[in-house]
Amino acid sequence: MQGTRVFLGALLLALGPQAALAQVPPAVAENLAVASRILADQNVVDAFGHVSMRSPDNPKHFFMPRSLAPALTGPADIMEFDENSNAVDAQGRAVFLERFIHGEIYRRRPDVVAVVHSHSPAVIPFGVVKTPMGAMFHNAAFLAKGAPVFDIAEKFGTTNMLVANQAIGAALAEKLGDKSVALMRGHGVAVVGPSLELAVFRAVYTEVDARLQTQAVTLGGPIQFLSPEEGEQADKVNAQIVARAWDLWKRRVAK
Amino acid sequence: MQGTRVFLGALLLALGPQAALAQVPPAVAENLAVASRILADQNVVDAFGHVSMRSPDNPKHFFMPRSLAPALTGPADIMEFDENSNAVDAQGRAVFLERFIHGEIYRRRPDVVAVVHSHSPAVIPFGVVKTPMGAMFHNAAFLAKGAPVFDIAEKFGTTNMLVANQAIGAALAEKLGDKSVALMRGHGVAVVGPSLELAVFRAVYTEVDARLQTQAVTLGGPIQFLSPEEGEQADKVNAQIVARAWDLWKRRVAK
Amino acid sequence: MQGTRVFLGALLLALGPQAALAQVPPAVAENLAVASRILADQNVVDAFGHVSMRSPDNPKHFFMPRSLAPALTGPADIMEFDENSNAVDAQGRAVFLERFIHGEIYRRRPDVVAVVHSHSPAVIPFGVVKTPMGAMFHNAAFLAKGAPVFDIAEKFGTTNMLVANQAIGAALAEKLGDKSVALMRGHGVAVVGPSLELAVFRAVYTEVDARLQTQAVTLGGPIQFLSPEEGEQADKVNAQIVARAWDLWKRRVAK
Amino acid sequence: MQGTRVFLGALLLALGPQAALAQVPPAVAENLAVASRILADQNVVDAFGHVSMRSPDNPKHFFMPRSLAPALTGPADIMEFDENSNAVDAQGRAVFLERFIHGEIYRRRPDVVAVVHSHSPAVIPFGVVKTPMGAMFHNAAFLAKGAPVFDIAEKFGTTNMLVANQAIGAALAEKLGDKSVALMRGHGVAVVGPSLELAVFRAVYTEVDARLQTQAVTLGGPIQFLSPEEGEQADKVNAQIVARAWDLWKRRVAK
Repeated sequence: MQGTRVFLGALLLALGPQAALAQVPPAVAENLAVASRILADQNVVDAFGHVSMRSPDNPKHFFMPRSLAPALTGPADIMEFDENSNAVDAQGRAVFLERFIHGEIYRRRPDVVAVVHSHSPAVIPFGVVKTPMGAMFHNAAFLAKGAPVFDIAEKFGTTNMLVANQAIGAALAEKLGDKSVALMRGHGVAVVGPSLELAVFRAVYTEVDARLQTQAVTLGGPIQFLSPEEGEQADKVNAQIVARAWDLWKRRVAK
Repeated sequence: MQGTRVFLGALLLALGPQAALAQVPPAVAENLAVASRILADQNVVDAFGHVSMRSPDNPKHFFMPRSLAPALTGPADIMEFDENSNAVDAQGRAVFLERFIHGEIYRRRPDVVAVVHSHSPAVIPFGVVKTPMGAMFHNAAFLAKGAPVFDIAEKFGTTNMLVANQAIGAALAEKLGDKSVALMRGHGVAVVGPSLELAVFRAVYTEVDARLQTQAVTLGGPIQFLSPEEGEQADKVNAQIVARAWDLWKRRVAK
Repeated sequence: MQGTRVFLGALLLALGPQAALAQVPPAVAENLAVASRILADQNVVDAFGHVSMRSPDNPKHFFMPRSLAPALTGPADIMEFDENSNAVDAQGRAVFLERFIHGEIYRRRPDVVAVVHSHSPAVIPFGVVKTPMGAMFHNAAFLAKGAPVFDIAEKFGTTNMLVANQAIGAALAEKLGDKSVALMRGHGVAVVGPSLELAVFRAVYTEVDARLQTQAVTLGGPIQFLSPEEGEQADKVNAQIVARAWDLWKRRVAK
Repeated sequence: MQGTRVFLGALLLALGPQAALAQVPPAVAENLAVASRILADQNVVDAFGHVSMRSPDNPKHFFMPRSLAPALTGPADIMEFDENSNAVDAQGRAVFLERFIHGEIYRRRPDVVAVVHSHSPAVIPFGVVKTPMGAMFHNAAFLAKGAPVFDIAEKFGTTNMLVANQAIGAALAEKLGDKSVALMRGHGVAVVGPSLELAVFRAVYTEVDARLQTQAVTLGGPIQFLSPEEGEQADKVNAQIVARAWDLWKRRVAK
């Protein structure tokens, strides 16, 4: 094992800096693949959607899977991207069209370590009506700060709805501001977190919260959401307990 | 293997053109069986419903399964039908009563390569109320053109609700017009596409869209659907990414 | 095998008529066990609920499982009951408290061959509000005749809500009249059919119909149900296609 | 085996009363682990939530799992807590932050043998609107007495929403009063019962009831709930039939 690593290291040095960069840290590759499969298992993503993680070694870079269904993602599918969302070493692999969601958020939000983009089914309706999302319970406390809606048509007129270049990614990141969640009109949602585990946790509970709020609207009357202060305090607890959820979810998608 | 094919070819020639026609291209048989099982796995069909494909060799003919539950369909269950929806060589197999949905749409829509008929649960309610379906997000972009409602009673008075002959099939195809989806009052839905994969994709996302729109109605206020122009642009992307969904769905129903 | 049967027959004759009666026809036992497991698999029953069948040999008697969760029912659990819903030969087995639902319906409805009682989740709400159920689509055509609501309190005042004796069973059967479905206020539903397969089919599609109607109410506006005449014609088709559903459902619960 | 027990007994005596107390009765450990997994399987809990049981030997003490996801709980994870919700012998294991829910309810309700705390998804909306929960059907008869809402802010102002100490636990127990269910605003629910099986049964049917009531509200018009008297009578039946549900649910989570 040790010998193999030394040999690999020597080989990479021989191949030059480009190849060295393209080596994904094994723990990152493994965790991003698990995160992708968790999001599918928890019904946050279907055949589409993606999760990324800022590079621990080079904060301007990030890692995300090549273009395939999240449920099928393995460690070998994780690729590195630079600050302009270009693949560092594509090796012929297809990349996600909407990688700019990730790149432009990482550029503007140094606190963000991971980003999830999904077509979370219960969340999409909130992007096309006037009803704002609120925090229905403590596990969704991060929503107490609000979840702005990004309407691509505002700045870019008629499009195919996708965040297909840097300019659109930048506008989305700007709309996100300092929040954890940005709804995307007629499309989906972007969720961020200070760790991979918390970004996945928030993506799951944004979906749960949307279901709960829709039910509460059905029941009628005013909804008493968590106040911003309650949200701030409760979100700290989520950071402490996220491992309990991650461990359970990970076990469900173990191969 | 090679020898078997030669022998089979000679046998078919000896049996005359009718028998030759009845041979379903293996790839078509396999794909239609997979499509049937995908539609069941994705909860678009239950014990009922069917998917067909225009013959690549004879555009007036089409292939669809014999009468059985979609979840149980294998390649050997695929049969060929002529332009009047008659089985080319039934070999005693039961055929679907509503094969005229397929035959009459193929007759009027040369651009259509595949047709799905289902009792898609979230879609049926839209066929019995005044609320029109719209495109809630880009994966359902094909709905931005609208989804007309076919009421069998308009032309045929009191019936058993089924498209049980050519005349009813023709009226349904006329109501469909140049759209991708026609709702059928008190019955279900017909969805078409320029490929088998896209017809299945649209059938799945018509169901998803219906769920999303029902939730948005619950939330209240006006819904901002994709505009027809946005729909047209976004639907082009769906044609590019459909393989990602198909591959995932196919893997789930592999035997 | 042949020898065993002869021996069993001789043994039963020796034991007298009572024991002979208690022998459940193997096909009935197998089908009732399958029906019980189908109803659980299709989410019509949970730990509670039961399905029965009129005796083919003695029309005053009927067969139903001993008291256990439908999902766990096997052929050996089927028992025979007389016209007063007494077990013919209990052999110490616990019987369902609400067997009177079955016995009293068989008494009043000679056309009925099978009865399902369940707490079908989407149906229960229709028993406690003023909104009547209607037929949303052809598979639920039997609902076009209407589904009366039985309120146990009308005749019996404050109770534990259960059909725990002949008098309550009789009142329920009277409320059912010539319909296929009777809702039970604050409790569940009774569904009948001219065959075991059709009774199960109707129980499943009563649940489906309730979901569809609830969604249609959400969408707003008047609902165009199947007319009574459409319902009558469409229900005849259901009798022809029920085997397709039964075969699929049976396969799912095969042991 | 016998020898091992004798040796263990001797060892515990040698270690003093503290260690002796920490020995969880095997049947209690097994049943609490099963109960935890049932609640996960029935979608009452997700990665969070817990169930406890009063000690049969020392009514001031109770047993509950160490801090982990309910779906992963085994007999070895069950710990003993004293009347102040302190672990009797933690052995370095992490305990649930909200064990005070359990301890303070046991203190005030001598009739209570088991307590479930969950974020039951259909129930949470009832904690943030004005619509009170009622008993939709006999299996949820225990709700006919009403389900008070505990708003942590009433007494404690801005918090992280958790029952993180004795004072908050006491206020929740007081709000519960003599009822079976207390909703917790922006958080979840606490459900109690006179046995472990009935507490789990009630937790499951509180979730089911919430779904049914939400559907009934959708249908519109006044809802005819079970009256308090009907509820009292029907709840007695639940105590008689709970084993049928428990046996089925237990089988589903058997390892």
